[in-house]
Amino acid sequence: MPKMPLTLIPRSLLSLAMAAMAAGASLPAHANIAKPKTGAEVLAQSPDSDWRPLDPENTLLMELPQGQVLIELAPRFAPAHVANIRALALGGFYDGLAIVRVQDNFVAQWGDPLGEDAAKAKPLSAGASPKIPAEFSIPLKSIPKADFARLPDLDGWAKLTGFVDGFPVAADPQKGRAWLAHCYATVGAGRSDAPDSSTGAELYAVIGQAPRGLDLNITTVGRVLKGIELLSSLPRGGTNMGFYDKPEQRHGIQRVRLLAQVPEAERPALQVLRTDSKTWPLWLDTRRKRGGWFVYNPQHVDLCGVSAPTRAAK
Amino acid sequence: MPKMPLTLIPRSLLSLAMAAMAAGASLPAHANIAKPKTGAEVLAQSPDSDWRPLDPENTLLMELPQGQVLIELAPRFAPAHVANIRALALGGFYDGLAIVRVQDNFVAQWGDPLGEDAAKAKPLSAGASPKIPAEFSIPLKSIPKADFARLPDLDGWAKLTGFVDGFPVAADPQKGRAWLAHCYATVGAGRSDAPDSSTGAELYAVIGQAPRGLDLNITTVGRVLKGIELLSSLPRGGTNMGFYDKPEQRHGIQRVRLLAQVPEAERPALQVLRTDSKTWPLWLDTRRKRGGWFVYNPQHVDLCGVSAPTRAAK
Repeated sequence: MPKMPLTLIPRSLLSLAMAAMAAGASLPAHANIAKPKTGAEVLAQSPDSDWRPLDPENTLLMELPQGQVLIELAPRFAPAHVANIRALALGGFYDGLAIVRVQDNFVAQWGDPLGEDAAKAKPLSAGASPKIPAEFSIPLKSIPKADFARLPDLDGWAKLTGFVDGFPVAADPQKGRAWLAHCYATVGAGRSDAPDSSTGAELYAVIGQAPRGLDLNITTVGRVLKGIELLSSLPRGGTNMGFYDKPEQRHGIQRVRLLAQVPEAERPALQVLRTDSKTWPLWLDTRRKRGGWFVYNPQHVDLCGVSAPTRAAK
Repeated sequence: MPKMPLTLIPRSLLSLAMAAMAAGASLPAHANIAKPKTGAEVLAQSPDSDWRPLDPENTLLMELPQGQVLIELAPRFAPAHVANIRALALGGFYDGLAIVRVQDNFVAQWGDPLGEDAAKAKPLSAGASPKIPAEFSIPLKSIPKADFARLPDLDGWAKLTGFVDGFPVAADPQKGRAWLAHCYATVGAGRSDAPDSSTGAELYAVIGQAPRGLDLNITTVGRVLKGIELLSSLPRGGTNMGFYDKPEQRHGIQRVRLLAQVPEAERPALQVLRTDSKTWPLWLDTRRKRGGWFVYNPQHVDLCGVSAPTRAAK
């Protein structure tokens, strides 16, 4: 049983234990005093103010025959891409397109199967630009300190990591840049060889070990909040980077709407734990210090090994 | 284009460049001299002696209706479990069992669906013990230095990492222990609350972000060499840790044989790049230093972000 900082011990238990010690009682090895809280306990005890609703202007609802995929957009990190994606969703651009690539331990990618053919490609919706800047990183100083829940745990890929607006973020303090990291369920905008060739018309979600080597090489635009398992369980494509060899292997997308377009009563009523809340570090600690089945405690959590939990709105 | 250590530059190119510089020529920004080799190039140039065949005594062939899954066992790290698994395969124990659990971003697990019911559980094969020790780690000093291809890159979970026998390995030099790390495709032996309750009769493969928090908490026995996508693309189970709620959701296992049981002509003819070879660090470098599409080089690779490649036997 690992040691826990006193601050995590409920006062009642602490008093009980101290009284017992004062009375000369020896604590059993597995006394409750050292039992780490579980994630469920921490969330159950969190105040409602530590949760936020989905922002209808920054949430995509993708409908597949298998179910719904909910994607939270990150306008702070990719304002031009998110503006484009909003315009594309509002204009119905993604409706009827397809998941065209599923590469094992890497990404599921969707867009216009005919997008490479200028004559046949579906035109972008009004308000979406065919040419926007690459948005691989933003100035670190543009993120207020209170918004950046820093992770003290060592990361091999970046000197500074943490969470901003619920997203996993890495940063280079020397270069003064920060970026939304490639973790499981991170969503990015596919590009060709030119760094500024992404528009948001083609998107991918990470479905494997965090491909952090993509960080700073491509624009990340958000993360899948719900339904990632509908993408990660799709049959893998062929040897050409997971692109399906035959059109009939592709998976149709029924439609993609901004949550603001969905009648209020039909919107998924989810809340997200705020990563700038007091509950967030407690939640991280439940991953660092495990009880119950665990016999060894890593005392570590990695940027891509945790994510902001969601719950049904009350 | 990133800088490359001179040691990786083919001598012919180097001479050419030096001759050009001596002649006062300026090198174009994208001169070949600085172009990192691709992984395919490194593998194509590797000597045959840097590859090893599959060991028929340490390789499992699992047959599913969808295809074959090939698992390499790690007797150095879990001798008692591997001995048990060998006996179970030889005795046909796994034949007709099922994949009972698929939890998104975590594991696919297989075994006897009735294993918890002593009256109905399939008896273990002759030679397999119902009680073997937990094998969470081995003495670090038991691994000859030449066998341990150390990874210089920083890891948040362990002070020392690298590759042994083709497996990702983490170690704690202070405690003098080493273990096979939980990476994508790592195979472990399911256990109940008691640390020594695993027998190898129930196995799991990692199908998501490396759950390194499981390291030192459970016995890891090998890795999926081929066919992990057949496990990772299965429909996810319900909210009870991914266990399928209904028996009909489970996926039958046709049979599991040790490769030694398979007629030689029918064995998958694969070779594995030796992680104690000279090609191995060159392969790692192709991940650290990316050319082509990449515009930023991480100069980093993580233990679970690379794996020993395989190729068809010549």
